Amino acid sequence: MTAHPRFEPEPWCVRESALDLDTLAQAESIFALANGHLGLRGNFDEGEPYGVPGTYVNGLYELRPLPYAEAGYGYPESGQAIVNVTNGKLVRLLLDDEPFDVRYGQLRSHERVLDMRAGTLTRDVHWVSPAGQAARIRSVRLVSFTHRAVAGISYEVEAIDDMARVVVQSELVANEPLPMSERDPRAAAVLASPLVSEDHGCRGLAAVELVHHMAASGLRLAAAMDHTVEGPADTLVNAESEPDAGRVTVTTVLGAGQRLRIVKLLAYGWSSLRSRRALRDQVVAALTAARHSGWDGLLDEQREYLDDFWDRAGVEVEGDPEIEQAARFALFHVLQAGARAEGRAIPAKGLTGTGYDGHAFWDTEMFVLPVLIHSFPKAAADALRWRHGTLPIARERASTLGLHGAAFPWRTIAGQECSGYWPAGTAAFHVNADIADAVIRYVDATADDEFERDVGLELLVETARLWCSLGHHDGQGCFRIPGVTGPDEYSALADDNVYTNLMAQQNLLAAADAAERHGEKAGALGVEQRDVEAWRAAAGAMFVPYDDGLGVHPQSNCFTGYSLWDFEATRPDQYPLFLHFPYFDLYRKQVVKQADLVLAMHVRGDAFTDEQKARNFAYYEPLTVRDSSLSAATQAVMAAETGHLELAYHYLRETSLVDLHDLHDNTGNGLHLAALAGGWSALVAGFGGFRAGKGALAFAPRLPTPLRRLAFHLQYRDRCVRVVVTPGEASYVLRSGDPIEVTHHGEPLVVSTKEPVTRPIPRLAPLPRLGQPPGRGVARRHLTGDE
Amino acid sequence: MTAHPRFEPEPWCVRESALDLDTLAQAESIFALANGHLGLRGNFDEGEPYGVPGTYVNGLYELRPLPYAEAGYGYPESGQAIVNVTNGKLVRLLLDDEPFDVRYGQLRSHERVLDMRAGTLTRDVHWVSPAGQAARIRSVRLVSFTHRAVAGISYEVEAIDDMARVVVQSELVANEPLPMSERDPRAAAVLASPLVSEDHGCRGLAAVELVHHMAASGLRLAAAMDHTVEGPADTLVNAESEPDAGRVTVTTVLGAGQRLRIVKLLAYGWSSLRSRRALRDQVVAALTAARHSGWDGLLDEQREYLDDFWDRAGVEVEGDPEIEQAARFALFHVLQAGARAEGRAIPAKGLTGTGYDGHAFWDTEMFVLPVLIHSFPKAAADALRWRHGTLPIARERASTLGLHGAAFPWRTIAGQECSGYWPAGTAAFHVNADIADAVIRYVDATADDEFERDVGLELLVETARLWCSLGHHDGQGCFRIPGVTGPDEYSALADDNVYTNLMAQQNLLAAADAAERHGEKAGALGVEQRDVEAWRAAAGAMFVPYDDGLGVHPQSNCFTGYSLWDFEATRPDQYPLFLHFPYFDLYRKQVVKQADLVLAMHVRGDAFTDEQKARNFAYYEPLTVRDSSLSAATQAVMAAETGHLELAYHYLRETSLVDLHDLHDNTGNGLHLAALAGGWSALVAGFGGFRAGKGALAFAPRLPTPLRRLAFHLQYRDRCVRVVVTPGEASYVLRSGDPIEVTHHGEPLVVSTKEPVTRPIPRLAPLPRLGQPPGRGVARRHLTGDE
Repeated sequence: MTAHPRFEPEPWCVRESALDLDTLAQAESIFALANGHLGLRGNFDEGEPYGVPGTYVNGLYELRPLPYAEAGYGYPESGQAIVNVTNGKLVRLLLDDEPFDVRYGQLRSHERVLDMRAGTLTRDVHWVSPAGQAARIRSVRLVSFTHRAVAGISYEVEAIDDMARVVVQSELVANEPLPMSERDPRAAAVLASPLVSEDHGCRGLAAVELVHHMAASGLRLAAAMDHTVEGPADTLVNAESEPDAGRVTVTTVLGAGQRLRIVKLLAYGWSSLRSRRALRDQVVAALTAARHSGWDGLLDEQREYLDDFWDRAGVEVEGDPEIEQAARFALFHVLQAGARAEGRAIPAKGLTGTGYDGHAFWDTEMFVLPVLIHSFPKAAADALRWRHGTLPIARERASTLGLHGAAFPWRTIAGQECSGYWPAGTAAFHVNADIADAVIRYVDATADDEFERDVGLELLVETARLWCSLGHHDGQGCFRIPGVTGPDEYSALADDNVYTNLMAQQNLLAAADAAERHGEKAGALGVEQRDVEAWRAAAGAMFVPYDDGLGVHPQSNCFTGYSLWDFEATRPDQYPLFLHFPYFDLYRKQVVKQADLVLAMHVRGDAFTDEQKARNFAYYEPLTVRDSSLSAATQAVMAAETGHLELAYHYLRETSLVDLHDLHDNTGNGLHLAALAGGWSALVAGFGGFRAGKGALAFAPRLPTPLRRLAFHLQYRDRCVRVVVTPGEASYVLRSGDPIEVTHHGEPLVVSTKEPVTRPIPRLAPLPRLGQPPGRGVARRHLTGDE
Repeated sequence: MTAHPRFEPEPWCVRESALDLDTLAQAESIFALANGHLGLRGNFDEGEPYGVPGTYVNGLYELRPLPYAEAGYGYPESGQAIVNVTNGKLVRLLLDDEPFDVRYGQLRSHERVLDMRAGTLTRDVHWVSPAGQAARIRSVRLVSFTHRAVAGISYEVEAIDDMARVVVQSELVANEPLPMSERDPRAAAVLASPLVSEDHGCRGLAAVELVHHMAASGLRLAAAMDHTVEGPADTLVNAESEPDAGRVTVTTVLGAGQRLRIVKLLAYGWSSLRSRRALRDQVVAALTAARHSGWDGLLDEQREYLDDFWDRAGVEVEGDPEIEQAARFALFHVLQAGARAEGRAIPAKGLTGTGYDGHAFWDTEMFVLPVLIHSFPKAAADALRWRHGTLPIARERASTLGLHGAAFPWRTIAGQECSGYWPAGTAAFHVNADIADAVIRYVDATADDEFERDVGLELLVETARLWCSLGHHDGQGCFRIPGVTGPDEYSALADDNVYTNLMAQQNLLAAADAAERHGEKAGALGVEQRDVEAWRAAAGAMFVPYDDGLGVHPQSNCFTGYSLWDFEATRPDQYPLFLHFPYFDLYRKQVVKQADLVLAMHVRGDAFTDEQKARNFAYYEPLTVRDSSLSAATQAVMAAETGHLELAYHYLRETSLVDLHDLHDNTGNGLHLAALAGGWSALVAGFGGFRAGKGALAFAPRLPTPLRRLAFHLQYRDRCVRVVVTPGEASYVLRSGDPIEVTHHGEPLVVSTKEPVTRPIPRLAPLPRLGQPPGRGVARRHLTGDE
């Protein structure tokens, strides 16, 4: 955790004004550029020094064996792991034969700026070589939103004082060495050199292509680069290639004040089917299209794409510039992760690092998609189409497990279960209801009937079938789901997890409703009337445990009878707990890693009374250690709903700044996409009090003391809703679309494009301050009037 | 499973009259000889063909890495595995330059006999070589009970028709190749050649020693052989050695009817501390002592040792000769596993194979020790001394797990936890109460006050401390133990497992009682009055769940609310279930691998009323699939107690014949020692109705239809009690010791050495027949009047 924020708060940029070699990896994740298909970590152009070098194409994976000390039926035998593919970011510079390296010579200035409106990463360097030769270097990097396969780098070097001999080597490098990972050395060995060369060659003097395949998965990858060079007349350009490397060398002599500029275009493609030749042609074609747009054209298209996005998804925050920056940073990276994924997953780290092996989990559906659904719904639909495309694998997995319908994996790249610890993997069946939840939200937000019929219905039906085989009606007729793991990873294999049961209930009802709306298609999927009746019966009889003595919902049946974790005896250096205590003990005590029952209260708020929400929130707050980054956002939302506004504000900061402040000390492995997305939810669902469902939009806005104004835009059924909240009032207006009824703190209003409708915000009675577990108190920013 | 028993029922022998090359491994386990320290599988003298070659010394292990797809805190990083040590059984024969091999030439006859009174394995062969040379070969093998380190082989070859050139090669071979195992190939690689040569050499013409150490564990092993040769005058003897082999070659020419006889003596020793030289000297000294006894002396001592054992532990059964043979076979192998273990574990397979990596589990204490306690108590005490010796390791493990006292391992050779799947390993904390139970039983049966003070007390105290930290008093004051795994391995991480809670209760009370009896020693162990009070309070408040609706005890809290396993949909080839269904599903359904609640009713019978026992037994019978060999014996005992005598008889056969009939199709990996021991319990505790505790002996004998008479001997507090049961009456007499009061079906009797006291057996009302799960019905031997 860095003591002081490294990145100054600016509304639309993330700026690093000085270089810190100790936190390179964090900056590489922060400055990662991606479009959902191709991702480049913010490594230096010259390749070294680095924290973690990284270039990723979404969906490409290598297989690694999953070993077990004691194997068991149904355990996955191999896992999929994201691959650091051919690095095309490399542009090395020699100045009078001395390599440009920030560790040598004098770095007069070094600034990097991520511009979230331009969609570029800009670097400005003023460097003096050990021999005293001074140069300015400016590089601008983008991963194109409009050209899915393409990235580009504009690299400019200027001699300052003297004439300088300059050599620029622009490279493609496969199998670059990676820093040692802490994990099982066998796994690291497999992934150390995953790329097997198939083909390589140059086209002309400035273009190179490399084709590889993965040794175990067999997937094929092509990478290509092409260059445009502007420099003095005698500038020489030459290309060469070998199996694992391509190089275009530009040689010239610059007079003082003279510049050399190279525009490097990159294209990547991969396939499990297409031939070496076809794939090589594909990347060459992508480069040709990009050249046609030209560098300036790429920049213009990029800005236009982002202007449109910010127009639809804008967030404005007054009173905490860090939060405004962080909210936009979150939206920008969510967009980067999902914009052009198109049939591939949105991994937990996006395409910013290799954390979690590049796997996608349930948090995509529960944290990331809610943001996309109301800001860039097309990408949310694509993410769900990816799930739909993996239905055959999920059906087979259900069958392997002796279940009906589809069982989606706990973690995966291509759809196969890659979890090597089933009590916290396979047993966490809620992922299926989470996917259903995203379908329900998306269809509600878009009224996309075609999507529901062609994609959503089957997802709902297959997951409903799963729940019917996972649960049973007990002797009293209640529908029970024993032995599953809910969101809280410090509990496992518990009976009747409230979150799981309520989400399954919603899943079952939505499947029944959708099947009735699309009778013909449902019939084609084998749905019969008795199935629909069984789903409704299970949902209607769903058991939700309640502790009458304490007046709270146990997270799972019996949970509130367990002994409390001994927080007093737990030292600060023993967090996260799972690195210092056995699962055995965590599972049998009242200690919560991440919001579970509290998440149920957010996403199934209809199943709780206000009093229950208040009591439950107060009960779980001192039990929740937030060893997962997936907790603070949900706590922010429910703290706001239950009136703990200042606490919600602190949680908003915790989730929003998770990466900019490196709060979990692992941003270097990639960004915490769900936590960032949760920052948006903390603002919009928390302080905006936004809830949607069944065609209705509700708001219950209320700001915490530090915030003076919050404005946000929401996409909803071909409308763009703009909400502006101040401490005293809220106003609603449509920026586009037909009038719609919403509620403001329960009061119905009709909102249109004509003029904003403004309502006062009801006052709130002060509440006693809630505590977190000893040693795990939320970081409280100093406030003038603290809660 | 063999269709027809291979071994004819004889009272004192197991005889194989004809060779079956397809079931060599089973026979090797059946014919294994051991003394608790040294074990030789029943491999052929000539080494080939084999099922699994095996020579084992108790406690010697190699380490193998335990890999995890997802590692967790507290997971053991390496496991201990039994090693196939230097093979000294080898005696190869060349007849006119043709090797004797049962697969070639003509096998006129081949008979092997395990003599359970002589303690020998005898083999008689009449073989005609491919060239037509006929010979008789007779070998007699023993592993000495009186010379702990020593085994011997008398090998005799007789030329029958013609003069024959005979060469006998007697060998010691290290790192002999093993058949491929099905497990993880990495583990197999580690154990393929575990022995690293340190020293080798010959002494004179007939003796060789080899010294090795294990590559990873570093443990050192010495093996030595010496020979006495009787043959024609010109017989030549020569010894040679190399790092992994020693050979003594005997060459002669036999006339028709002439014999060559070689007595081979073997000695083994291992140490973690002693030097190469000291260990080599140690085995030479053991050989010298054995030579001093001589072959005939060894045979005499062996028979004398066994006469004494059978005198104290005799069992006679009329009406089922297979059962009489099996009961003695069980006692013989239990003795072989424990007699001279002296400070080492009694593994689940004894020293008869590498099954379960040679690990010892809880079943030693719960199934094997009860037999030894009442037949050979010294060995039971030794086994508990081994546990006591591992207390430092168990204390460290408890500390690692954040618990107090000692946490004994689920599976181990030397005391370290070797379980790679914690939900069915570490979480099965009942092993600690099982060890306490064996202490309690042993002290009750022997009144060995010194043992209790020096060994038992600390075991009881440290396990009581564990239970206090594992459980807690809930809001109602009940003492609860959530999240543990009971004996049934088709359930895991359940709350308040009845078996575990009742055994912990007994453990806590016994610790309190023992601490009060040995106040000074308890004080030295840090026991304070408040500890004793806390133990009594926890025991007094122990929660035992009960299902009022069904009128039965749930195996664990909530168990009876789970849905029933779909037995109808389960095909016969899907057993054992854990190879065809995920643990996830097994854990959350009502399906029982092995007696759990039913075992609690046997060992804590005082905690249940007769009506509860009857209802519980009837409830669990159709849920129990017996995928573990540890189930039938307990079901036999409780079937007998609840009056289902014929069912008890079928279970008696299932447990007793587990290996002689290879009922689990894996006897080749080693014998099922606990199931065999359970056969004794089925007879003595089942049909004898024997229960002991707190100085009282109770009997409630009652025979099933096929049995006409059952007699058994029990050691109890310096007495030998003889009980004879017939269908109509039972008689009790002491063969030694002071008079003692016992009960017969509740009626108090005083039994002495004077004359038997005879009482009639009360008649039993017929009961409805109970069913097992479909497809898992107990094998019912045809009876004239079936139940």
